[in-house]
Amino acid sequence: MIHTPLTRDWGLRYPIIGAPMAGAADGRLAAAVSSAGGLGMIGIGSQASNGFIHEQAAVARQGGKFGLGLMVWALADRPELLEAAVAARPNLLSLSFGDPTPYVPVCHAAGIPVAVQVHSQAEARQAERAGVDLIVAQGTEAGGHTGAVATLPLLQVVLDTVSVPVVAAGGIATPQGLAAVLAAGAAGAWIGTALLASPEAAHNATAQARLLAADETETLLTHVFDCVQGLAWPEEYPGRALRNDFAARWHGQEETLMRSEQAIEEFHQGRGDYSVGFIYAGQSVGLVRQVRPAADVISTLGEAAEQWLSRRLTILSGQD
Amino acid sequence: MIHTPLTRDWGLRYPIIGAPMAGAADGRLAAAVSSAGGLGMIGIGSQASNGFIHEQAAVARQGGKFGLGLMVWALADRPELLEAAVAARPNLLSLSFGDPTPYVPVCHAAGIPVAVQVHSQAEARQAERAGVDLIVAQGTEAGGHTGAVATLPLLQVVLDTVSVPVVAAGGIATPQGLAAVLAAGAAGAWIGTALLASPEAAHNATAQARLLAADETETLLTHVFDCVQGLAWPEEYPGRALRNDFAARWHGQEETLMRSEQAIEEFHQGRGDYSVGFIYAGQSVGLVRQVRPAADVISTLGEAAEQWLSRRLTILSGQD
Repeated sequence: MIHTPLTRDWGLRYPIIGAPMAGAADGRLAAAVSSAGGLGMIGIGSQASNGFIHEQAAVARQGGKFGLGLMVWALADRPELLEAAVAARPNLLSLSFGDPTPYVPVCHAAGIPVAVQVHSQAEARQAERAGVDLIVAQGTEAGGHTGAVATLPLLQVVLDTVSVPVVAAGGIATPQGLAAVLAAGAAGAWIGTALLASPEAAHNATAQARLLAADETETLLTHVFDCVQGLAWPEEYPGRALRNDFAARWHGQEETLMRSEQAIEEFHQGRGDYSVGFIYAGQSVGLVRQVRPAADVISTLGEAAEQWLSRRLTILSGQD
Repeated sequence: MIHTPLTRDWGLRYPIIGAPMAGAADGRLAAAVSSAGGLGMIGIGSQASNGFIHEQAAVARQGGKFGLGLMVWALADRPELLEAAVAARPNLLSLSFGDPTPYVPVCHAAGIPVAVQVHSQAEARQAERAGVDLIVAQGTEAGGHTGAVATLPLLQVVLDTVSVPVVAAGGIATPQGLAAVLAAGAAGAWIGTALLASPEAAHNATAQARLLAADETETLLTHVFDCVQGLAWPEEYPGRALRNDFAARWHGQEETLMRSEQAIEEFHQGRGDYSVGFIYAGQSVGLVRQVRPAADVISTLGEAAEQWLSRRLTILSGQD
């Protein structure tokens, strides 16, 4: 048993949270992660319906605890997403990619703890001042939308800045990676990419085959897929996806892309073809080599990290 | 005492190597790092003279062991750099940014161990096949020239791929960061940015003030400073520097920059002004907050990492 605030205060068996990946982490994945002893989360996209939240929360609840992840920038136009999320009574609500301050009291009034993904020391300070319960230091190597600072330096900066528990996100997909962030002082890891090739993730077999084939160098951090969809993602959070033909053609040409009706039409027609459509994934995709049940991913990570840490400390202290 | 191949087989007191930063790490910095119990290295730029290598090696040797760092791509035009480096009889030679295979036997014939910085699984395999003695997994958050994959995922990939000792480079500037990579399985850390604000580094007070003022978000990975100098750095290795006016103006416009005699002239005239001239630094610059002797940086990192690891393991195992 690894002892951190996540296992001691939150009752998790393993200090692992399943990242709320909109479009990939629905109720089924969340339930699988939680039933294995982590905390599974559902990702709520900016276009999600209230019905989606209600339905997926019901599925997730079958695994025990669950969390919901919202994007703060989307709440300006759609405050009903937060109402629906609170009404679903999750065990954790994440409010990321924007200033969470106005929304934290609503969650706390309903008795729901709040997590915030941060990408800099300034965002970590803002989150702590807002009274959040958990800070997620999300490195640039993470899949999907993220910042520019890598997990290892960001984690050191954030741990040095705040006193609430911090988990690390981005680039963690092996027991050695989990051991690293725990040793640095993190309360646990926020795992996304390592779960994408699970049968419980919302990706089809074609997308999963692409994920298994990709190595750590085959992702791209880009605004292309937000621009082509007309999504109002803030400039400072591009998305990390598997590099494909469409991204290679338009990366750095986003202004032109947004004015090209032909390219936008091509994207919407071709989304099922992954040379056009996107698959968000982090650099740890190079460590994802087989389709494995999410529960197996979580329990193997948690058990092996504990054994690895114990053995590694023996070696480092010269007692082997 | 932390036990790793660097302390056990290489006789270092701390498992820390000072990165061979051309233009910043001369003999004086290398001597300070080695005298404190790490292994100091001198960075050899592509334009360095043989006299520079000879002179700086003599300075470094006063600290005990020392290493020299060469760039492989520069050896095609200047094979005499390798001859001079071998003649200086360093305790470690690093051969990075290009295929080291042709050069490893020359070093080994002279009894000099070889390290190679790698940025992907493919480069790690190449280095191991070449028979190198130490692999440096250098993440994108590192200062100076580097690759695209971040330290944490790269380290996991490389440790999973090779059986020679691996050290981690990029984003490590606190005892917590050193503890993280040691816990993951690294034999030690390769530290650059954390040493830049030392009196022994070759930077002037103005540059050091810039380094102290910068936070973790204020670096940029760019080809601008190689293009403007006409240096033949391979496309896959941009350089991470403090973001400044010159880089902001030309980043993404490198083709135009290389054709602009006016911009090139402006750069050469203005290099002493750091709104034009570059200061290479990694994202861990956000953790560098005071001018400190290099020996103090090394011994504090090494001592505190050992204490931190021991205490952290007690906490994680629930024995606190």
